Amino acid sequence: MGLGKGYATQECAMAKALELIGERWTLLIVRDAFFGVRRYNDFLRRLDLPRAVLAERLQALVEHGVFDRLPDPNHSTRSEYSLTPQGIALWPVVYSLARWGERHMDPKGATRFYFHVECGKRIDANGLCGECGRWVPPTELEARPNPRRAYTRTDPVSLALRKPHRLLEPLLP
Amino acid sequence: MGLGKGYATQECAMAKALELIGERWTLLIVRDAFFGVRRYNDFLRRLDLPRAVLAERLQALVEHGVFDRLPDPNHSTRSEYSLTPQGIALWPVVYSLARWGERHMDPKGATRFYFHVECGKRIDANGLCGECGRWVPPTELEARPNPRRAYTRTDPVSLALRKPHRLLEPLLP
Repeated sequence: MGLGKGYATQECAMAKALELIGERWTLLIVRDAFFGVRRYNDFLRRLDLPRAVLAERLQALVEHGVFDRLPDPNHSTRSEYSLTPQGIALWPVVYSLARWGERHMDPKGATRFYFHVECGKRIDANGLCGECGRWVPPTELEARPNPRRAYTRTDPVSLALRKPHRLLEPLLP
Repeated sequence: MGLGKGYATQECAMAKALELIGERWTLLIVRDAFFGVRRYNDFLRRLDLPRAVLAERLQALVEHGVFDRLPDPNHSTRSEYSLTPQGIALWPVVYSLARWGERHMDPKGATRFYFHVECGKRIDANGLCGECGRWVPPTELEARPNPRRAYTRTDPVSLALRKPHRLLEPLLP
């Protein structure tokens, strides 16, 4: 048993999900992919994690069908990572964790808010638009910084996210 | 930086949530608390995890206000653990992870289904009732086993969950 990677004896789809998604750093990488981060170096500077760990996590996400890896159009020797439909389906996990964290674990509150682009209204804690009432998929959301929160990180990803940005669109040129 | 417990440099409420909830086994303990598991020995037999890890996780969940610890009415020297309102607010995280896992990671599909008690209809992937259309809180849900799935675990918790059970109500006598 112990503290290995798997939960071999658990008959539960959530345990299976956690074998991939519960690995340390993995959900932060997925979160940044929703913000439009696509390149290894951008993930690296944003997350301050060891290179080998980032490489291993990206590889696992590609192998399990969460990320696509494609050649970077600007650097022939590099790759770009983007969320597959299966990866985009993780949005409710990312969103619900962030909402819970900002409400119960972080005295500074929300890092950012999410708006339904079509209606211009914020989504509620369950992901429903305050205007049309529909559950809004991440492709129709814009992230906006919390004007009451001070941001101190100065990596390129964090700087770019101080402005509103539509989810899943590439964040950095 | 490394792979310690925290994400000290991340300005993000999700990272704060993961410092507690992202610890290995913690979300499986929380999941079982939604099913009505309340005693140390029941968590232990259900999860097959080392005793010291379970004790440490329960302690952290109490310290962070996710679980209440109260005397077990049947055993004066033991404790019972139950979800606080802050813990119950983790339901969207547990539900979205389970839905994603059963759809994308587990070829056997859903472990169980969730029904809105008042309407008798299943909730959809976003937690909305198929009948009344409302987002249903876990206090109004009944878990039912998937009739197409074979269950092999024989611990008392797993056996009790082969029958329908209302979330958060004590599972074992």
